[in-house]
Amino acid sequence: MELNLNKHISGQFNEELEQIRNDVLKMGGLVEQQLTNALNAVNKRDKDLAKQVLESDYLVNKMDVKIDEDCTRIIAKRQPAASDLRLVLAIIKTITDLERIGDEAKRIAKVALESFSNTQQEFLVSMDGMGRKALAMLNDVLDAFARMDVDAAFEVHKADKELDKEYEAIARQLMTYMMEDPRSIPKIMDVLWSIRSLERVGDRCQNISEYVIYFVKGKDVRHTSEADIKHNILN
Amino acid sequence: MELNLNKHISGQFNEELEQIRNDVLKMGGLVEQQLTNALNAVNKRDKDLAKQVLESDYLVNKMDVKIDEDCTRIIAKRQPAASDLRLVLAIIKTITDLERIGDEAKRIAKVALESFSNTQQEFLVSMDGMGRKALAMLNDVLDAFARMDVDAAFEVHKADKELDKEYEAIARQLMTYMMEDPRSIPKIMDVLWSIRSLERVGDRCQNISEYVIYFVKGKDVRHTSEADIKHNILN
Repeated sequence: MELNLNKHISGQFNEELEQIRNDVLKMGGLVEQQLTNALNAVNKRDKDLAKQVLESDYLVNKMDVKIDEDCTRIIAKRQPAASDLRLVLAIIKTITDLERIGDEAKRIAKVALESFSNTQQEFLVSMDGMGRKALAMLNDVLDAFARMDVDAAFEVHKADKELDKEYEAIARQLMTYMMEDPRSIPKIMDVLWSIRSLERVGDRCQNISEYVIYFVKGKDVRHTSEADIKHNILN
Repeated sequence: MELNLNKHISGQFNEELEQIRNDVLKMGGLVEQQLTNALNAVNKRDKDLAKQVLESDYLVNKMDVKIDEDCTRIIAKRQPAASDLRLVLAIIKTITDLERIGDEAKRIAKVALESFSNTQQEFLVSMDGMGRKALAMLNDVLDAFARMDVDAAFEVHKADKELDKEYEAIARQLMTYMMEDPRSIPKIMDVLWSIRSLERVGDRCQNISEYVIYFVKGKDVRHTSEADIKHNILN
C-alpha cells in the first residue's frame, strides 16, 4: 500500500508522522533484540546475557512512554482525521503490545538465571523451536507494519494458530515429564511459564497484525473470524 | 475530582463524553459479572453457569468495539484537547484491559467444565479467596474510574502487590501437591492456570488505575515506582 503521506498540506505534519513510524520500528527492533537475547540466554545458559535483557527493559519502557506522548501531542496539535487518525491510534495500541512482548522477554530471561540439570536443560532446548517461531512472527508483523501490508499482516494472524498448537504439544510433553519425575516439577514449571510467555508473544503479534489491518482497511477486526477477515475485509 | 464537563461550549460534546463514560462503566459491570459468574461456576461446580460465561463473552467484545469506535469518532469530530483528549485516550486503553479481563473470566469458566475429584475440588476452593480479592480490585478500580478518584486508584495500584503474594503462595502449595500426587498434575495445572488468570486480572486493574491517574494528573505513571507516584505525582 502506498502511504501517500504527501497529501498533507503541512510538510511538518508528514515529518512528524514519519518520525513516529520510525520510532515504532526502532522500538520493535529493540524488543526483537530483547526476545532474541532472552532465548539465547536460556539456550546457552548465558547468565550475563540474561542480566543484560533485564537491564535493558527500561529502554523499551522509555520508548513506549515517549511514542505515546508524541501520539497524544500529534492528535492535540494536528487534529488528524480519517487514515491519519487511524495511524496514530494504531500506533498507540501497537506500542502497548510491543512493550508487553518486552515484559515476556524479561520473564524468559529470568529463567536463564536459574540452574538446571542436564535433563531439564533438554526441555529448555525444546522450547527453542517455539521461540524461533514467535520471533519470526514478531519480525514479520513489524515488517507488515513498516510496509502497511495487510496480506503480510494476515499471514501473521494465521500463524498464531500454529504457535498455539506447538504450545499445547510441548505443554503436554512437559506434564508427562513432571509425572515421571515429580522432583523436577518446580524447574519444569519454569519452562512451562516460558513457553506460555512465547504463546503470549504470538497473541500480541496477532494483535499488532489486527492494527495494521485496521489502519489500512478502516475496519476493526479484533473479534472477527479469520474466514470473515479473508472474505469480507481483505477482498 | 470535579469533572467540570460544563466548561464545553458544546452541550452536545458534553453529552457524548458522558455517554462514553457511562458505556465504559456498563462494560465494566458486565466484565465484573462475567468474573463473578466464572468464580461461582468453579466454586459450585456449576457447568451451566460456566457455559453462560462462555456464551456472554461476545457481549463484552461488542461493547469493546462500539466504545472504541465512539472514541475514534469523538476525536475526529470534536478534536478534543488537554483533559478531554486524555479522557478519550484513557478510555481507549481502559476498555482494552476490561476486554482482556473478560477473556480471563472465560479461561476460568472453562476449568469449571472439567470434572474434578473431591481433593482437587479443595484446591479449586483455595482460589476462592484470591478470586474475591481480584474481584474487589476490579470493583474498586471501576469505582475510581467512575469518580475519577486518584487516591482510590492508587489504592488499587498498591493492592496488586498483595494479590501477587497470594498467587505465589497458592502456586507453591499446588506444586507441593503435584509432587505428592503426580497423577493429579494435569488437573492441578488447570487450577494453576486459573490463579495465574486471577493474577493477570490484578495486573489489568493496576493498568486501569494508571489510566485514571493519567487522566486526572496528566502524567503517564506506567513505569513509575509506587514511591515516586505517591510523592511526586499525587501530592
